[in-house]
Amino acid sequence: MFVQSKPVEEPYTPLTKLKAPPNHPGHLYTDILVEPNRWIEEACEEARMSVEAGGGPFGAVLIQVDDETDRVLRYWRDRNHVTEYKDPTAHAEVSVIRSACRELDVYDLGTVMRPESRLPQAGETSHCEIYSSCEPCPMCYAAIKWARIPVMVFSATRHEASHPDVGFSDKDVYEDLEKNYQDRDTVVRQAVCTKALDAFEAWKRSGNLRY
Amino acid sequence: MFVQSKPVEEPYTPLTKLKAPPNHPGHLYTDILVEPNRWIEEACEEARMSVEAGGGPFGAVLIQVDDETDRVLRYWRDRNHVTEYKDPTAHAEVSVIRSACRELDVYDLGTVMRPESRLPQAGETSHCEIYSSCEPCPMCYAAIKWARIPVMVFSATRHEASHPDVGFSDKDVYEDLEKNYQDRDTVVRQAVCTKALDAFEAWKRSGNLRY
Repeated sequence: MFVQSKPVEEPYTPLTKLKAPPNHPGHLYTDILVEPNRWIEEACEEARMSVEAGGGPFGAVLIQVDDETDRVLRYWRDRNHVTEYKDPTAHAEVSVIRSACRELDVYDLGTVMRPESRLPQAGETSHCEIYSSCEPCPMCYAAIKWARIPVMVFSATRHEASHPDVGFSDKDVYEDLEKNYQDRDTVVRQAVCTKALDAFEAWKRSGNLRY
Repeated sequence: MFVQSKPVEEPYTPLTKLKAPPNHPGHLYTDILVEPNRWIEEACEEARMSVEAGGGPFGAVLIQVDDETDRVLRYWRDRNHVTEYKDPTAHAEVSVIRSACRELDVYDLGTVMRPESRLPQAGETSHCEIYSSCEPCPMCYAAIKWARIPVMVFSATRHEASHPDVGFSDKDVYEDLEKNYQDRDTVVRQAVCTKALDAFEAWKRSGNLRY
């Protein structure tokens, strides 16, 4: 269920902004174009290999950058496993995040502390960036936020993925998230239970690790 | 990493709507109150037990209902495992969905077909409902959508979870999802790679399982 990291030792090359083609300001994609690099190409290759292996057309790469040496230490490369693992949450981004966290033994990929990481790094801290062959769905976007990954790069857009011949649309998910609960496609209800706040009260009194 | 189902054999009791207290129409939570039932109480108990076991204060229950007999067949009960598993995606809802899919050997919990399910059911189809001790974050909400679960019930709200004394806020995630990419907290960039559409082209030609 998990991929292993591959070691590299190469300088980290900052993303280079491209002058955007004529575009309407204030658009979702305005002013975010950067030059392709090795990592986005690997993510796209992984997506193609995923199809050849019988899976869905999505790949992702996660790189770990040492904050002191500014070198890429290692990377993970994974793909969509929904049909293979029978896991609706096993999108490429979620899968690669889970693999990296598992191997590093951390749940925060935004600030990996040397004493806490299971894998070596020269600097006191390192951080990760994620590259995905396609614009992330809300599940993956939120997973990237929860993993505290500060940089996300994608190649194809949701519009290319949802072309009728391709058939992957997350439009319903985005639209549902913007509606009041009673107007959503999924039936969402609230049952106010007297026990509902017991866990929060216990949490306040506990010394459990804050995250 | 996975919990096992617990068998039950009890009639499915439909959710009973409660007359809402005075409320502004058009509000996120308008007109979704239902009477608490066994499943939401179990989800809240699980959340409390999670804290007692050292984890975060969130629990979830997933029930499977036979569409012909209208009986609850079994249920899964799981909790937040973020710090325990060092997995930022291991929220209670994602965890319980992954467990149910694993045991049933399906990725669609909205229509579980008898010939495809690893566990027995009388009817040709069954479906699942999910109960969570707290309003789901966007990651979990999207995971519920991808798993095609038609009914979602929560107890505590995001506002109770984000109270300063409790400290779990998904406000940044919700807010980021509503912004254009260049305005988000996470640096989001697009690198248009010539290989970006190769996977989609290969997918169109492939006979891979559609999902």
